[in-house]
Amino acid sequence: MRVSEERLRSSIRRNAEYGQIVSDDGNGRTVLTGSEANRNARDELVSQLRSVGLEVSIDAVGNIVGRWYPPGCDPDTKPVASGSHLDSVPEGGIFDGPLGVYAALEAVRSLKEQGVELSRPIDVVCFTEEEGQRFSNGLLGSSVAAGMISVAEAHALEDESGTRFDDALEEIGYLGTGQVNAADWDSWLELHIEQGTTLQSKNAAAGIVTAITGITHCYLEIEGEADHAGSTPMSERTDAMTAASEIILELEDAANDIVSDESASAVATVGSVSATPNATNVIPGSVSLGVDIRDIEGASIATLVEALSRAARSVERERGVEVSIARPYDVPPAPMAERCKAALTAAGREVGLETIHMHSGAAHDTMQVASVTDAGLLFAPSRDGISHNPREWTDWSDCADATAILTAALATLAE
Amino acid sequence: MRVSEERLRSSIRRNAEYGQIVSDDGNGRTVLTGSEANRNARDELVSQLRSVGLEVSIDAVGNIVGRWYPPGCDPDTKPVASGSHLDSVPEGGIFDGPLGVYAALEAVRSLKEQGVELSRPIDVVCFTEEEGQRFSNGLLGSSVAAGMISVAEAHALEDESGTRFDDALEEIGYLGTGQVNAADWDSWLELHIEQGTTLQSKNAAAGIVTAITGITHCYLEIEGEADHAGSTPMSERTDAMTAASEIILELEDAANDIVSDESASAVATVGSVSATPNATNVIPGSVSLGVDIRDIEGASIATLVEALSRAARSVERERGVEVSIARPYDVPPAPMAERCKAALTAAGREVGLETIHMHSGAAHDTMQVASVTDAGLLFAPSRDGISHNPREWTDWSDCADATAILTAALATLAE
Repeated sequence: MRVSEERLRSSIRRNAEYGQIVSDDGNGRTVLTGSEANRNARDELVSQLRSVGLEVSIDAVGNIVGRWYPPGCDPDTKPVASGSHLDSVPEGGIFDGPLGVYAALEAVRSLKEQGVELSRPIDVVCFTEEEGQRFSNGLLGSSVAAGMISVAEAHALEDESGTRFDDALEEIGYLGTGQVNAADWDSWLELHIEQGTTLQSKNAAAGIVTAITGITHCYLEIEGEADHAGSTPMSERTDAMTAASEIILELEDAANDIVSDESASAVATVGSVSATPNATNVIPGSVSLGVDIRDIEGASIATLVEALSRAARSVERERGVEVSIARPYDVPPAPMAERCKAALTAAGREVGLETIHMHSGAAHDTMQVASVTDAGLLFAPSRDGISHNPREWTDWSDCADATAILTAALATLAE
Repeated sequence: MRVSEERLRSSIRRNAEYGQIVSDDGNGRTVLTGSEANRNARDELVSQLRSVGLEVSIDAVGNIVGRWYPPGCDPDTKPVASGSHLDSVPEGGIFDGPLGVYAALEAVRSLKEQGVELSRPIDVVCFTEEEGQRFSNGLLGSSVAAGMISVAEAHALEDESGTRFDDALEEIGYLGTGQVNAADWDSWLELHIEQGTTLQSKNAAAGIVTAITGITHCYLEIEGEADHAGSTPMSERTDAMTAASEIILELEDAANDIVSDESASAVATVGSVSATPNATNVIPGSVSLGVDIRDIEGASIATLVEALSRAARSVERERGVEVSIARPYDVPPAPMAERCKAALTAAGREVGLETIHMHSGAAHDTMQVASVTDAGLLFAPSRDGISHNPREWTDWSDCADATAILTAALATLAE
């Protein structure tokens, strides 16, 4: 399955011009949903989809689909779909998202050029607002396509200035009609950059994801008593910060316990901390913690949430603080479908490239799609694991290699 | 030494009208240096000082002194001085500062009425900007009077809006000339509310302070590596927040070790914490800590700073972070003068009130004065220890009792 590295590079380079930011560090871009840069990036994609002869549709949340009917296909069978997203975080990189969109298009171009006959149509997909930087927590377009969020709920989302999501889409001409339904796809494959160092360190061409980790966010409020740092003896304190420190270290211990089994992949992070009143000479009266827990094993996530809760009860008992724990965000692990992993593994062999199996610690649109149809996720190497940063980089030959694997796997699934 | 509770109450009540804030919780006021409220409070004091026949002078940093020449005194001997401050924290209470100023004035009124003959003049003193809410970190007027800060340095201080300290004083008519020199005083006594619960719990009329704790502020910068909370395995993290938590708990342990000897009074507080980037799904790349360490024993402070430093080296070694420690603020403990403590102790016996010996965990102007002359500090009870709050309260009878002790002690020192 020969693909054109030059054509792929040219598309990604062209896309990188929209929202481009000048940086000594590399190639950055800022493409938020509904921005001028987002309109231009979408216009470019739609123009390329049409130039290859794909039937383009835009749904009510701005998801873009270009459908290709290969020679020999039955237009009424379920399509095989592939894609990713074009939006970015502020000052993000040029590969996170666009690689997956333009790799899917390159696959179609390549299959078409080679005159490959397939029984299923192939959809090239661009999901809206994967990064969740303006209207949502992310995965917005794929959540609608997977039936997790209704179009009406999505439309009512507002950005910080009070602009509604549907108005923002209309503004750039991408408030379409209907709704992409991921359940109507026979199967789905996404190519994405790894955003980690596993492939680099193992010198592998691509990673076949076995599962995307589940994610839980917990928010803790630790209530102690704010007091004078000078006139309150050690024995009379109810210090919310020392209590918070104990919880932070106990959670870390619990995660380290799990990963002492080397095959385990659980992670726990206290990423945000805020103390009140936060003055050097006042004992902290309250502390808020934002906790992120992930694993491909639901049981590990449960164990870590339990450890958090046990640590909270312990400081309540030992230190007299009160701790409340909210858990507003809880996405279960998403195992990838056997036949998608098998198609990708076979494709790696077919094109003569070494692939490894790995899990994904980051969320992707594929997570949502996997809840309604067979899905697979392929990683291309990220230089030094850097992402969400202008220094994000994947060598063009690595982009092409992963695209070749994607192409062969799509051909297998659409056979 | 009979004093007038009614006269003292009336003065403190009158003073409480300046900068008064309406609060269901009690009697609040906001009197920042150079404000209209500060001008009115100062005008009221000067007017009362003059009405009692004191010679009023205003120095170049706005310190107010009213000098009384008692019958029989040698006007050329060193005066005995007493006072406190009239500024407040935002939404502070009505006793913190004004009690000490008007108690000193009440002492002079009482001694004068009783026709007591003394050999030394008595200075009633109001220091500028004790609370340090606008131009400084506090103790500003007394720091200049003790020669720790020059008048020129003080004048150049600016508030958040860029207004200079000298301009603010001139604006309210209190940019005087010359410089109060605390070293020219034979001795000094300050009456202040305790701002703690020791007197209440021991049911004592007043506390004779043996020493004011030394205070060190240390600022730590802990540098780790910000990384994706999902794709960075536990073993590959350099998490600045878990490192910070370890330091916080080790410092607490070290302080608890010291106070396991029940006579010890050391305290250590991590009051301010800030993590970067402070996002739930990102491993903290750096954390800043603000640490407050106090004790009446210099050796304990040194031990705690050493514990902090040892904890920092330990997380550098074990966790790969880098920790820098700055120590920009370091005031040694200030023991009170034997003869001042003795005068206060004898005064308590003389007026028939129970006093106890205790230390002060909070800083006061007396700390600065003690570096250049013999100084003593007397505490009146604070209801429930509440201070810097409209609920700050000291019963009027307790105010009067403590003022009677102060008066008798001043008479002894000025004999």
